[in-house]
Amino acid sequence: MSLDPAVAAVRLAVRRTLAEVDLPAGRSVVVACSGGADSLALLAATVFETRRMPQRVIGVIVDHGLQDGSAEHTASVVAQMIRLGADETGSVRVQVETDGHGTEAAAREARYAVLEEIAGRLGAGTVLLGHTLDDQAETALLGLARGSGGRSIAGMRPGFGVFRRPLLGIRRAQTEAACAAEDITSWTDPHNSDPRFTRARVRHSVLPVLERELGPGVAETLARTAEQLRPDMAALDRLADAALARHLHAGAGTRTGPGFDVREVADLEQAVRTRMLRLAALSAGCPPSELFAVHVDALEQQVHNHEKLPKQIQLPGHVTAYRQGDHLWFGATSVES
Amino acid sequence: MSLDPAVAAVRLAVRRTLAEVDLPAGRSVVVACSGGADSLALLAATVFETRRMPQRVIGVIVDHGLQDGSAEHTASVVAQMIRLGADETGSVRVQVETDGHGTEAAAREARYAVLEEIAGRLGAGTVLLGHTLDDQAETALLGLARGSGGRSIAGMRPGFGVFRRPLLGIRRAQTEAACAAEDITSWTDPHNSDPRFTRARVRHSVLPVLERELGPGVAETLARTAEQLRPDMAALDRLADAALARHLHAGAGTRTGPGFDVREVADLEQAVRTRMLRLAALSAGCPPSELFAVHVDALEQQVHNHEKLPKQIQLPGHVTAYRQGDHLWFGATSVES
Repeated sequence: MSLDPAVAAVRLAVRRTLAEVDLPAGRSVVVACSGGADSLALLAATVFETRRMPQRVIGVIVDHGLQDGSAEHTASVVAQMIRLGADETGSVRVQVETDGHGTEAAAREARYAVLEEIAGRLGAGTVLLGHTLDDQAETALLGLARGSGGRSIAGMRPGFGVFRRPLLGIRRAQTEAACAAEDITSWTDPHNSDPRFTRARVRHSVLPVLERELGPGVAETLARTAEQLRPDMAALDRLADAALARHLHAGAGTRTGPGFDVREVADLEQAVRTRMLRLAALSAGCPPSELFAVHVDALEQQVHNHEKLPKQIQLPGHVTAYRQGDHLWFGATSVES
Repeated sequence: MSLDPAVAAVRLAVRRTLAEVDLPAGRSVVVACSGGADSLALLAATVFETRRMPQRVIGVIVDHGLQDGSAEHTASVVAQMIRLGADETGSVRVQVETDGHGTEAAAREARYAVLEEIAGRLGAGTVLLGHTLDDQAETALLGLARGSGGRSIAGMRPGFGVFRRPLLGIRRAQTEAACAAEDITSWTDPHNSDPRFTRARVRHSVLPVLERELGPGVAETLARTAEQLRPDMAALDRLADAALARHLHAGAGTRTGPGFDVREVADLEQAVRTRMLRLAALSAGCPPSELFAVHVDALEQQVHNHEKLPKQIQLPGHVTAYRQGDHLWFGATSVES
């Protein structure tokens, strides 16, 4: 029997990631498993690719307890991971605090925190996540709809901390085909087709229309755009960090907080300066969730034609930017103003 | 009678652009007019805003001769421009060569060339174009579907050369409302609803689905994303220009062409280096239309782990990148290779 091409593609992707990570012999590999086709295909491929390696494969399922029957689902995924050849399995129930972020974001944060904790406890060298090219395209499109610039279109990173995403170049349909070829029964998360979730609407309504009207391959195109934007955004962020370190001076006691000379930053590239101004406002205590483009724009205005502008800018978090001559500095908002 | 808010919005946008351009008294203003609501609202607002200014307003229609009855349409738009108070009008028929670019791109290039030529001939200081926020959103979405990175999502510039686009912050519906409020009958280009054109499909199928599934305001969001990406891309392009000037050395006679030391560019930001490599390949004679990401990636590989790689890279336009030690240089592809 010849090797199924979808199985081969998933295995190759895992092989490349394991080669990049280059784990020492004593460090095991955690595979985060939801029971979906993507993560089951990932686990099966990881078991295969490590068959002649000393590293143990640990399948872990995180139960958010958000859906009815989640305990039974968790138990059946554990049984499946054992059958697929995981050396160890683990299941963890987490409490999801649904704050302002929405359920999806809260569940994701809780999941990553517990996976990182487990990886540390088990001496694992890496945690593999099953996100596919389709997830990447959806993330880029969701970011585009948020409109917070290039960073939000840049999608998911192939790796961060202990986490790696080997399947970002693999289509979701390929993981389904790989499961079918290996007789693996996968689970479909009902949230994925629940139109109350924006991501589900992107998957089932938006992307199919884009494919129909703009031609096939839109998912690949979105993923490629995300991939191309990531180094662009990272470069500008690092240049802004460097500019902040060069230009932001500490404050002088209680009267003035940290600040900079507007003439010194006037020659920076606008894209670098606006990022630097944002970082400066954050370092002065503005909460990231409340600091918007309109605030950064107001600071940017002060750099160019400050003669005509008011000498104070109210920023979120009771921070005020004060200007004295060519000096712009951040301080607590005074009671009188 | 109070001023219609759509008329006021269009006038304000034109007022701001005219203030920015700050034309000398003897320089007139050309308004490019298709007969659509956007360009007629633009012409009416320009006539109003210049009523106490010495500059003359010249309405120009470019007839591409692509549709039946275009001569009659052109004549009726000229009559309309005269009624709206244009000091002068002009109509020009252009021959559109439909090469590989597709009809829309060829018509656009011909239009800009003839408008620039007319502006020069009439001593005009600026040419106003009627593109709206909706056009900008459509352009960003079309760029996203092309997948050529941040540059293609960055949309249309507010100005280039003598051209200005005052209405990039105005919705198309506002220009229609402005025409209705001033009893201006506008024309609807049948191409705009012809599903053979990708832009028409974006306008009538894709954007409405995005609005429905991701929430209203998607057009504004897309336009804002384009606006935020423009300075980002411009900054990286300028940094790449500077890196090229710093690192690319002239060739040594017939044996080696222009090249650089791979160790010197290894510390550049990847986003800057890949752009620099692209510019270097272009300067070596690679045709821009044939130079793709895959070629730039091959050059990028040489910077990092060139020990293991072949010493020659075939590039389009009969250009080869040769490596000798740490030196990578461009030359004509030799017959033997």
